[in-house]
Amino acid sequence: MMETQSKIRIKDIAEMSGVSVGTVDRVLHGRTNVSKKSLEKVQKVLDEINYVPNHYASALASNKVHKFAAILPMHEVDSYWARVEKGLYEGVRKFNDFKISFDVFQYDPFNDESFKSECDNLINSEPDAVIIGPIFNYNIMKNFVDRLDKKELPYALLDSNWSEFNPVTFYGQDSLKSGEFSGRIMEMAIKGDADEIAIFRVMGEGRVASRQQMNREVGFRNYMKEHCPKCKIHEVNLYAYDKPGMKEILNEFFTQNPDVQYGVSFNSSIHLVGEFLCKEMPKRKVTLMGYDAVDANVKCIKDGSVDFLIAQHPHDQGLNCFRSMFNACVLHIKQKRDHYVSIELLTKENIDFYTD
Amino acid sequence: MMETQSKIRIKDIAEMSGVSVGTVDRVLHGRTNVSKKSLEKVQKVLDEINYVPNHYASALASNKVHKFAAILPMHEVDSYWARVEKGLYEGVRKFNDFKISFDVFQYDPFNDESFKSECDNLINSEPDAVIIGPIFNYNIMKNFVDRLDKKELPYALLDSNWSEFNPVTFYGQDSLKSGEFSGRIMEMAIKGDADEIAIFRVMGEGRVASRQQMNREVGFRNYMKEHCPKCKIHEVNLYAYDKPGMKEILNEFFTQNPDVQYGVSFNSSIHLVGEFLCKEMPKRKVTLMGYDAVDANVKCIKDGSVDFLIAQHPHDQGLNCFRSMFNACVLHIKQKRDHYVSIELLTKENIDFYTD
Repeated sequence: MMETQSKIRIKDIAEMSGVSVGTVDRVLHGRTNVSKKSLEKVQKVLDEINYVPNHYASALASNKVHKFAAILPMHEVDSYWARVEKGLYEGVRKFNDFKISFDVFQYDPFNDESFKSECDNLINSEPDAVIIGPIFNYNIMKNFVDRLDKKELPYALLDSNWSEFNPVTFYGQDSLKSGEFSGRIMEMAIKGDADEIAIFRVMGEGRVASRQQMNREVGFRNYMKEHCPKCKIHEVNLYAYDKPGMKEILNEFFTQNPDVQYGVSFNSSIHLVGEFLCKEMPKRKVTLMGYDAVDANVKCIKDGSVDFLIAQHPHDQGLNCFRSMFNACVLHIKQKRDHYVSIELLTKENIDFYTD
Repeated sequence: MMETQSKIRIKDIAEMSGVSVGTVDRVLHGRTNVSKKSLEKVQKVLDEINYVPNHYASALASNKVHKFAAILPMHEVDSYWARVEKGLYEGVRKFNDFKISFDVFQYDPFNDESFKSECDNLINSEPDAVIIGPIFNYNIMKNFVDRLDKKELPYALLDSNWSEFNPVTFYGQDSLKSGEFSGRIMEMAIKGDADEIAIFRVMGEGRVASRQQMNREVGFRNYMKEHCPKCKIHEVNLYAYDKPGMKEILNEFFTQNPDVQYGVSFNSSIHLVGEFLCKEMPKRKVTLMGYDAVDANVKCIKDGSVDFLIAQHPHDQGLNCFRSMFNACVLHIKQKRDHYVSIELLTKENIDFYTD
């Protein structure tokens, strides 16, 4: 388990180049005040010995502040995005031996203008690297990514992946597979072969909040079409900015559709349905499945008003995404393009052993 | 996020005690060749200032080799225990700045004498700390643990927990909850309310290999008794040292019990049943569930001969267990008694995103 390797020290390079140790040090760390002649001498030796720079030591020694910025959907305490953000900040702390700054810009996921204006703020803050929790709209994302590319600013994608872009890395679930998995669990939960299922969507501006959510629904529908072709799937649209209206919509839906015994939501809001049924229709038994072990959902799992959650370790997503960006942008280590995170089923029986 | 604290340096302690820096250093690192008088002077100052030792620096500076030993069930390449062992060795590597030795003693889990004799070998090797993958028998474990206690040797338990013992820490699944979770999944998989289920057990000396396995079965049966009371549960005992005999037993069982459509195993051997059915009774559809994402099981999930696996990150168990023991025994940081690991469902849809 021991490895030996002959290490070339700065002292050796200095001797080989015929310059001082201090000069080699200045060259290696990219500092100024080195004469052109000395620089050439050192560079020649570095080329000859195939010198692989120790970026870690180099970055530690550097006076440069590495400016990271993230643009994320605005979020309440304990939401999916709050946990991702906590993970990002833990990443910042992990590398606090280095000079790092980190700013987070929050946008309204249902308001394209809000995203655009936060993109402007982010770019004006002149970061060195960017982490993006993407907005739904392709053209708006494309415009932002093009601006980053033009400035040669490296960026990472979190949660929603886009094969059309070239981020340093992506962290999040494979949304289609995640939807197929939720279909598999639903198929197991339903007992008859012609059951009725409701998809609950939290909408704004006529769409859900993210591509990740939209594609989970695609994966779910693909699975159900193949494995439960006779199941009837209802769509129930709830409006993010109309909480009182939600109650009305749910009340109407469940009253008009007495045979719906199963429900699913592809974001972390299934607790809204669980709480509604618990309070307003306590005798109605609907098997519910949703995403993310946020506190409100965990509470519903424990009291039985929600049956299944699919979890994805948001804190680890944030932490690992920050680490990847740090490795790529500060240590110049190439990162894997796609990091698909786990797709985990939580029930009353195993939820106590899940950690973010 | 910055903390400031006034640090007392060795130099300060030396001045306050009126001895040399070297003497303080020797006292702090527990070395010999310090006069009784100097020792008392230094100790008095340490008491006065409520000195909290920096165990990390102290351990790094020490010349002591920390001898860790593990006693584990013998295992084939890629088994659950092979992955745990890999994790333990990764732990050893992580702390290779320290002087650590690590020996693994392997015993036959179905042979009590083999365990006893490896316990002797382990104790004769004079380790400082012990990691135990327990044998099934309580009295034999008790005897071993008593010997460790008498020598004041700290130990950890892996996989099977025993509330009667006082290990530094335990890493593994909550076996009853794990069994209940497998019951929940089985309840969902079965479609009728009076279905027939087979429990496949790999036995030796009239028992399964571990308490963990036995208690998973207890949890499973509890769940099924409550939620599917009309289900008929068969027991099929396979013998670990009689591989040809397995085929005969499975053949006889499936022939005599044409209504059994579901099967479960509480260790990592469900692939034996999947492979048998695939090859010998390709038309017989049995929904199978087992434990552990070992290669043979993953292959069965992908070809559809096994439907569900419950996974538990064995590599992380080994790594984290070693880290805990290192923290407890070298850095003198108290560890949590029980570390219950996650209970994860793997299917064809999400298995690609699971990592050990």
